[in-house]
Amino acid sequence: MIKIQEKFKIVYNYSVYFIENLFDRGQNYFSYILDECGIQHNSKFLFFIDSNVAVLHPDLIKDIKFFFNSGNYKLADTPLIISGGEVVKNDFANVHSILEAIDKYGIDRHSYIVAIGGGAVLDAVGFAAAIGHRGIRHIRIPSTVLSQNDSGVGVKNGINYFGKKNFIGTFAPPFIVINDFNLLHTLSARDFRSGFAEAIKVGLIKDDSFFDFIEEHASELIDRDSEIIKQLIRRCAEIHLQHIAGGDPFEQGNSRPLDYGHWSAHKLEQLSNYRILHGEAVIMGMCLDAVYANLKGLLHEKEMMRLIHLSKKLEFKVYAPEMEVNNNKVKSGLLEGLQEFREHLGGQLTIMLLEKIGKGIEVHEMDEEFIMKAVSILKEND
Amino acid sequence: MIKIQEKFKIVYNYSVYFIENLFDRGQNYFSYILDECGIQHNSKFLFFIDSNVAVLHPDLIKDIKFFFNSGNYKLADTPLIISGGEVVKNDFANVHSILEAIDKYGIDRHSYIVAIGGGAVLDAVGFAAAIGHRGIRHIRIPSTVLSQNDSGVGVKNGINYFGKKNFIGTFAPPFIVINDFNLLHTLSARDFRSGFAEAIKVGLIKDDSFFDFIEEHASELIDRDSEIIKQLIRRCAEIHLQHIAGGDPFEQGNSRPLDYGHWSAHKLEQLSNYRILHGEAVIMGMCLDAVYANLKGLLHEKEMMRLIHLSKKLEFKVYAPEMEVNNNKVKSGLLEGLQEFREHLGGQLTIMLLEKIGKGIEVHEMDEEFIMKAVSILKEND
Repeated sequence: MIKIQEKFKIVYNYSVYFIENLFDRGQNYFSYILDECGIQHNSKFLFFIDSNVAVLHPDLIKDIKFFFNSGNYKLADTPLIISGGEVVKNDFANVHSILEAIDKYGIDRHSYIVAIGGGAVLDAVGFAAAIGHRGIRHIRIPSTVLSQNDSGVGVKNGINYFGKKNFIGTFAPPFIVINDFNLLHTLSARDFRSGFAEAIKVGLIKDDSFFDFIEEHASELIDRDSEIIKQLIRRCAEIHLQHIAGGDPFEQGNSRPLDYGHWSAHKLEQLSNYRILHGEAVIMGMCLDAVYANLKGLLHEKEMMRLIHLSKKLEFKVYAPEMEVNNNKVKSGLLEGLQEFREHLGGQLTIMLLEKIGKGIEVHEMDEEFIMKAVSILKEND
Repeated sequence: MIKIQEKFKIVYNYSVYFIENLFDRGQNYFSYILDECGIQHNSKFLFFIDSNVAVLHPDLIKDIKFFFNSGNYKLADTPLIISGGEVVKNDFANVHSILEAIDKYGIDRHSYIVAIGGGAVLDAVGFAAAIGHRGIRHIRIPSTVLSQNDSGVGVKNGINYFGKKNFIGTFAPPFIVINDFNLLHTLSARDFRSGFAEAIKVGLIKDDSFFDFIEEHASELIDRDSEIIKQLIRRCAEIHLQHIAGGDPFEQGNSRPLDYGHWSAHKLEQLSNYRILHGEAVIMGMCLDAVYANLKGLLHEKEMMRLIHLSKKLEFKVYAPEMEVNNNKVKSGLLEGLQEFREHLGGQLTIMLLEKIGKGIEVHEMDEEFIMKAVSILKEND
């Protein structure tokens, strides 16, 4: 037996910008960013815009065309519109359409695919970009609080398949991320608010002072106070990025602290046919695991109640009837989420629970009876 | 404008084993390899076997089951058979079927997908494994000379889409590669021989002494002399792996020396509806570019003729009528391969030509008239 050992490393390096009004004609933000990131003149860009964004920002396409009229870079065609919301991830046909555009416009590995939209659109476009020609450079311009502080700045993409969340996808770091604060003004209260969930999450598992900050400024957050929102997004994105760089970016191990509250959140989204938004489901999932941790003697009741109170102050529900839907008449469909979560991560079941705010602890089994007891407690507290 | 810089590296490390008769019941090769690579007991394995291999090695499935009966590892089910040959890459439905099995058998990121087969099967299974749950560990057991010395040991996968070779795929290093010499005995003369092409290629662009070795042992190669074949495969795989580790593993730049002769080879495969095997097309493509380089004054005629003579001694054709098929009645469809090659790589057209055997030089344009002149010369020399 003879063996050759193959070893190499790949370095990933990308910038996340925080800006207001990227395509402002008086400023040259986009041009400055492309320059700073070393993008060659004459490079070709293909844009995809979330239909929700296109409707709420009717001048966006004009502004993009105006920018490219300056002549330094090539615009493949008028930006293409792609349906917003989680549904875009439910059908591979949408990925196929993006690939068709890649083919039609001759987008190659040295061209740029830009996606402007919510997390779902970024996920679907990002996935197509990651597999087209084995990986086309991808620029993300997240348009929601949730995608600006969480998924949009990270390294994952994916679509749902066989009815399972993110069943196919890749780890593919973006080339650039641009968080344009201006895109958030037009969000509905519900979409806006749902973005707070991941910020609360990183506070809970990584940084109690950030959780304190959110608690302290809950009213301003509901009032969409610009300065507070900007701080929230920046700090959340920063903690998220630090975690990726410092840990296991492509999730080769078992541990997934950033998935606190997510085992049930993913399942609740699916059980509700995506009536419940991702951020809303994450709040419920985090509260559920906090109550569970309290029942198991891990988390003090006072800390648990801080999370429930904050969630309610931010106008979230902490309970949904979908938590108790019996899929197979024996037990709640919610509990299937544990097995699906384990399968998606692989290896041993690993769930992050809270010991206190700012500090998580991993457990490897969950007691179904206690989970359902936690559901009842949330129902009472909702 | 505020900026956060995200930077991290991912280290890839995998072993390529050269072995004879992996599942020999008297030996414990597979067990030894799994142990050495740190695979935990009780891990789950799902096997896919190329239909060509399954037919030629009727005991293989029995041997695999026998191995797993020992109880240290779990076999998800009887190995699944998947059609061999390039056609498997022409239909996304095949990837869908592999994903279905991943779902059905609960294959997660800490399970192992093993593919035994030719390059096409490894490419299709590898692609499904790379996107399922954002990347499932993948063990490759290449069954042809070509896949053992070239694609099977590398980091790419892919399928054809929109009729374009490898239009979608990823860079996803395998977890382990096992080159079992025993699988090669049953190959047809044509399949066997076609594997020499990539060995000649690495000799031409990287190592003249390896080219000398192939020239010197051409008769033994045709006679399938075991020792010479083993040396050829090992050395070719080694040069290939050194190139990947030392260069640009995920092909982020323009340069692609390992694609010498491939711009026309990919197109010839497609123009012939895959009548011409990959290795056969690569021989034609390399001869074409050698004649072109000679016409352009880059390569001495003697060196060009060494390649043509070696190709013919190894019973390859150096010309195919598909080289002259006029797709659009204006010029040969072959020439479209240049543009498609450029698009797949992205950026500037970069073609590797030969200055002499063992030494390449990159050019950024190709003269269509000279290409067609080179075609005529090959036709005369065929």
